[in-house]
Amino acid sequence: MAQKPSPAAQTAPSTDAAGRASRIKLMVFDVDGVFTDGSLFFTADGDTMKSFNSLDGHGVKLLERTGVQTAIITGRQSGIVAARAKELGITHLYQGVADKTVALAELLGVTGLSAAECGYMGDDWPDLAVMRRCGFAAAPANAHPEVLKRVHCVAQARGGHGAVREVCDAILRAQHRYDALLAAALGD
Amino acid sequence: MAQKPSPAAQTAPSTDAAGRASRIKLMVFDVDGVFTDGSLFFTADGDTMKSFNSLDGHGVKLLERTGVQTAIITGRQSGIVAARAKELGITHLYQGVADKTVALAELLGVTGLSAAECGYMGDDWPDLAVMRRCGFAAAPANAHPEVLKRVHCVAQARGGHGAVREVCDAILRAQHRYDALLAAALGD
Amino acid sequence: MAQKPSPAAQTAPSTDAAGRASRIKLMVFDVDGVFTDGSLFFTADGDTMKSFNSLDGHGVKLLERTGVQTAIITGRQSGIVAARAKELGITHLYQGVADKTVALAELLGVTGLSAAECGYMGDDWPDLAVMRRCGFAAAPANAHPEVLKRVHCVAQARGGHGAVREVCDAILRAQHRYDALLAAALGD
Amino acid sequence: MAQKPSPAAQTAPSTDAAGRASRIKLMVFDVDGVFTDGSLFFTADGDTMKSFNSLDGHGVKLLERTGVQTAIITGRQSGIVAARAKELGITHLYQGVADKTVALAELLGVTGLSAAECGYMGDDWPDLAVMRRCGFAAAPANAHPEVLKRVHCVAQARGGHGAVREVCDAILRAQHRYDALLAAALGD
Repeated sequence: MAQKPSPAAQTAPSTDAAGRASRIKLMVFDVDGVFTDGSLFFTADGDTMKSFNSLDGHGVKLLERTGVQTAIITGRQSGIVAARAKELGITHLYQGVADKTVALAELLGVTGLSAAECGYMGDDWPDLAVMRRCGFAAAPANAHPEVLKRVHCVAQARGGHGAVREVCDAILRAQHRYDALLAAALGD
Repeated sequence: MAQKPSPAAQTAPSTDAAGRASRIKLMVFDVDGVFTDGSLFFTADGDTMKSFNSLDGHGVKLLERTGVQTAIITGRQSGIVAARAKELGITHLYQGVADKTVALAELLGVTGLSAAECGYMGDDWPDLAVMRRCGFAAAPANAHPEVLKRVHCVAQARGGHGAVREVCDAILRAQHRYDALLAAALGD
Repeated sequence: MAQKPSPAAQTAPSTDAAGRASRIKLMVFDVDGVFTDGSLFFTADGDTMKSFNSLDGHGVKLLERTGVQTAIITGRQSGIVAARAKELGITHLYQGVADKTVALAELLGVTGLSAAECGYMGDDWPDLAVMRRCGFAAAPANAHPEVLKRVHCVAQARGGHGAVREVCDAILRAQHRYDALLAAALGD
Repeated sequence: MAQKPSPAAQTAPSTDAAGRASRIKLMVFDVDGVFTDGSLFFTADGDTMKSFNSLDGHGVKLLERTGVQTAIITGRQSGIVAARAKELGITHLYQGVADKTVALAELLGVTGLSAAECGYMGDDWPDLAVMRRCGFAAAPANAHPEVLKRVHCVAQARGGHGAVREVCDAILRAQHRYDALLAAALGD
């Protein structure tokens, strides 16, 4: 993961990225900057709203339909994320996490999976340590430069604008599930 | 519809697209990603807000003024869409739809129209099966790639930023109603 | 106004535009698509929020400081616009207007000004008839194409992202008030 | 500060900018257009919401961790800014400020620092007089042109989309604290 991906790898996942994505059984997502574009809508009561995306939601559902588990690990704490996670059927939800490597260790214990079977999508420094432990690492286009140069796959879209969907599609393709799901959607 | 449109067709509707648009008597719209840019504004109570666009609203009203019926078929369910549909005078409203082809069949029964007389604008996989049944299919710039390559007309704007208006304008032009409406707006 | 501005005129107001802007004593603004990017934030109760811009607000205040009057004429009706207009000191406020030429006529009567002394900034077809009556017409970058080709000045920014400020600056420059205001801001 | 930065200086802070940034002990931020993209979300009750950014928040926290003090000076007044400032640990908060040079003078008195040890990030004319007094001046990409040509460092990102983080990173680099903080984040 220390090696910087080539420019091509940033738009189309490299063979290495596809190989890594093919082996994951659990995909973990950060929230702010990944499921959103990092916007924190504040009122005088604090951050009371987040803007998620419908394309991303469908991607998560397709992933779950193929048996890939999904999880959220986020440093912030809110009922907003709980509401969205519930709607999307994301079973593993870790909020208010100070050290994300600790949450990942707990998650691996609960699921009985290895870190190599686990993917992670994040956008900022608090994601760096946990990302490098996982078998597959991805980021949205708007991620911090230090994150962008350490992941296997960079979405063309920004967080909250389809970045999660691109990564879900990449995993579905790597696991050879994409074409059958698309045929079903087309009603073929 | 299986054939991929040429790049030119994506910015300026092709002759084929204009011919198809000229025959429609009912235009059906998906909501998230079409009337909006896909943003789902969540509070702890779930998605409580959507961002519609004033240009789009005027396009729908112009369409209705020429006698083209309008409808919404969406997978989600909210009072938000009902409020916007009421304001725009959209008569046919189907929310919480699991299979959009079923809703279309019901809509065709109610209106007595054929699928060839029906247009559809959508952005994601749940729209694919219903789109291919309709005589005219359109998408916003931000639609999923699988949708973009299966429609007759791709708006230059994203959903929620004028994509619906572009498609309404294209229909009005194809049906030779655009110039008279514009002259009236100019007060000529 | 029927003549289409050259590409250069769209980024830097032409000499003609500057001449026209130099003569106005009242600047009228549409709201949706001009003071905002056209986004209508809907809850189940209808549109309950608009996103204005701080750069635009300062432009309106600078205009008023030089004695140019400001007004709003909008087709929609909301307490949101009333709140923003009050904060900016916009004295003439016409909401829920079906025919904007009627509101303009009333406004000219109230102020005792001629249409040639009046500027108008709008983005959509309901603005076309009123715009062509005014001495100076402007639009944001996101305006409908039929509006863009009929105005004297097109802002590089979209509505709600500084388009109003650009037009205010253009007026201040045309009226030779810009440099003195800037010097005051710099504390020279 | 009167000299216009070269195009290169606008993307990568010049040697001069780095030298200036290396000496600051207090970084002052405007809010609207800097911590946000200038959007003022209005309801009928006035502006009730602002959209901050998670990348920016982490940048401010990193700055504070190295002992650089942070402050906010803003012309508007709201509980929203107080809530965000509290979360980020920004100790010096001046709201509803008519003349920002007065607030700066007060801030320098409280902290015992000189203006040369103070940095300022702003986007509009009310920031011009205070910026030129400070040792280091920065702006987001969306700042007014008069501000852009008078600062030492222009972020590539817009306000509310990571502009503050870029400036925080530039300060951390200039003060030789960046690499150690990054190594800690990576868990090296």
